[in-house]
Amino acid sequence: MEFSRNSSLRFWTLPLEDTCGRILAEAITSTEDLPHFARSTMDGYALKAADTFGATETLPAYIKVTGEVFMGKTPYFSIKQGEAAKIPTGGMLPGGADAVLMYEHTQPFGNSDIEVLKALAPGDNVIQKGQDISKGTLLLNRGHKLRPQDMGALSAIGLSDVVVYKRPIVSIISTGDEIIPPGQPLKGAEVRDINSYNLHGLLLNNGALPVRKGIFRDDYDTIRGVVEEAVKTSQMVLITGGSSVGTLDHTKKIIAGLGRPGVLFHGVAVKPGKPLIAGSVDGIPIFGLPGHPAAVTVSFEVFIKQVLRRLTGEAAKEPDTNIIKARLTYSLSSQPARTDFIWVKIVNQDGQTCAQPILGKSGLIGTLVRADGIIEIPAGKRGVEEGEEVLVRLF
Amino acid sequence: MEFSRNSSLRFWTLPLEDTCGRILAEAITSTEDLPHFARSTMDGYALKAADTFGATETLPAYIKVTGEVFMGKTPYFSIKQGEAAKIPTGGMLPGGADAVLMYEHTQPFGNSDIEVLKALAPGDNVIQKGQDISKGTLLLNRGHKLRPQDMGALSAIGLSDVVVYKRPIVSIISTGDEIIPPGQPLKGAEVRDINSYNLHGLLLNNGALPVRKGIFRDDYDTIRGVVEEAVKTSQMVLITGGSSVGTLDHTKKIIAGLGRPGVLFHGVAVKPGKPLIAGSVDGIPIFGLPGHPAAVTVSFEVFIKQVLRRLTGEAAKEPDTNIIKARLTYSLSSQPARTDFIWVKIVNQDGQTCAQPILGKSGLIGTLVRADGIIEIPAGKRGVEEGEEVLVRLF
Repeated sequence: MEFSRNSSLRFWTLPLEDTCGRILAEAITSTEDLPHFARSTMDGYALKAADTFGATETLPAYIKVTGEVFMGKTPYFSIKQGEAAKIPTGGMLPGGADAVLMYEHTQPFGNSDIEVLKALAPGDNVIQKGQDISKGTLLLNRGHKLRPQDMGALSAIGLSDVVVYKRPIVSIISTGDEIIPPGQPLKGAEVRDINSYNLHGLLLNNGALPVRKGIFRDDYDTIRGVVEEAVKTSQMVLITGGSSVGTLDHTKKIIAGLGRPGVLFHGVAVKPGKPLIAGSVDGIPIFGLPGHPAAVTVSFEVFIKQVLRRLTGEAAKEPDTNIIKARLTYSLSSQPARTDFIWVKIVNQDGQTCAQPILGKSGLIGTLVRADGIIEIPAGKRGVEEGEEVLVRLF
Repeated sequence: MEFSRNSSLRFWTLPLEDTCGRILAEAITSTEDLPHFARSTMDGYALKAADTFGATETLPAYIKVTGEVFMGKTPYFSIKQGEAAKIPTGGMLPGGADAVLMYEHTQPFGNSDIEVLKALAPGDNVIQKGQDISKGTLLLNRGHKLRPQDMGALSAIGLSDVVVYKRPIVSIISTGDEIIPPGQPLKGAEVRDINSYNLHGLLLNNGALPVRKGIFRDDYDTIRGVVEEAVKTSQMVLITGGSSVGTLDHTKKIIAGLGRPGVLFHGVAVKPGKPLIAGSVDGIPIFGLPGHPAAVTVSFEVFIKQVLRRLTGEAAKEPDTNIIKARLTYSLSSQPARTDFIWVKIVNQDGQTCAQPILGKSGLIGTLVRADGIIEIPAGKRGVEEGEEVLVRLF
């Protein structure tokens, strides 16, 4: 698994191959020119462009082939006026040469001469030293999430080790007398733990290391004990429980009682997700999430993700390509006093990308499974009309 | 790391918590009703809706509270006409009750009676047994990539273990006399290995387990030996090397010499990526990739990914939300005889999602780092006009 090579709390150095999807903890500026020599981009002849001026198929120029460049080898000769050297794609341009003539534009002539059938300009079929990435270029910013091509570029400029943010440990505490784990048969009024697994996946996909603490009885002392321990061993704590007033009051009291500043807010004007509790104890953010699966996802996407970013170090992407435009397939009404989130499926209708609202009671896990994302109807709006363009947050 | 709990070659069983992003190897049909009992969605009173008919704030109905439902407990009493039981959100509806009245719509009256201030219909504030996911419902298809909400749903229906496809092992073989690894200082005409790391990331992001075999001299016997071993120990082999005619001929000869059917095609009408070689030896797909980083990415996205899907088991997504629509910020010309891929950056212009082509020589790794994706100009088209809508494949 992961290993630390420096003692810093928030970041460490990983071998390049382990950095896909990780967040850069420092900006990357190239300390080298890439390529670090002028290279040919074609199989052909390295020569002086001036020697080809005016050359055409009917009026060729004549040049003597005086050498050959081999891959990975430095050519220890120079090209003089009227001379050329064979060169492969990627080969180092010999001194004196400033362009490469493709084989296709030559004809052999005698033993060592070629006919030049095309005029070249200096730089034709050559990548200059530093033309790809020049020394001193800011290549990637701190907070950037590394993609495959970024890994290629880091290798290109000679970085075999990369300083990335450590993934923050986030504790998931499931509460409720009725909650049982998935591997156990259901008895009576029991229900299975949905939210721990949903949150586990959401945290993984957003660069955190989730730790499921388990399922705990809805009892003040029990939950307080678990939360107290979690605050000491993780960088964020998520408590998921029922949505009854009693359960939420419990969570609120525990957060308030553990330290300062305690509860920051309770209740947000969004649906689903209204009863969200947010707090902070000794610098560790704590969230009390409502029990409905849909409310958990909305709370995570809209609120928790922003706070998590401060821990993972990931910079917000502008524009966020995870939000796409689509046309609504039918009208939706909404209460203007709150922000509504509606689950939609992305469908293709006559070549148009459309968002089809998913019917059925909100808060159900079956609805989330059928969905590709959510749309937001902002507070102040009474609804969205069929055919109107909406923004879909995919997940 | 991973562990096998069954002996099948292509799939195995993993604990639910390890399945985020994995591909389902079997369709999931629920063997349970979710919820498996009628539940209240509100804090309030469980009662018979008929007892509330006609009730309003000015003309309330009167009902006796005869019991209380507790979370996770089966209520062993029934609601008779004129009766109600206190119930929390998520509580099991007692026999005889068919609706839940919210606290907000009641007034205490005497010791054990309540005033009902609102009429209810049967089913109000209740999730019926099986209403979320009913027994026998096809929940997820084989080939589906598991998302956080899917993990929640699998837990909900009692699956603590999930059968997923094993990730195919894909060997990456880097060839070229001039190639050195990133951790080594550059000498003379050497260049660093870019493609192995780019491919490593692309494979990881597409559900494969990459194995970088190393960098090998561009020598027939050496490379043949490595490829021969790789064909025996992996499910796919990618050979990346120079783009010179000599190097590509090497790769082609090796694939042809190892087994049947050998080389399937050499050269495709796309740019970049034209010299791609595709073959198959004893059922193992082998690709010889051109040396330019941009050509590697295009070859992977356009050709290799389709073949890889057959190994990872991942079903193609319809519509593919990884492809977004954008307006081109300036005109591009293109050769009608081939498909052109152009690197673009996604930018916001006056609230419109726009694709801004990235200038500079193609094939450079610096270009890929600045890009958010590629657009395709299909064969037959002479270009795309400024403002025209294009499809951007994000990565």
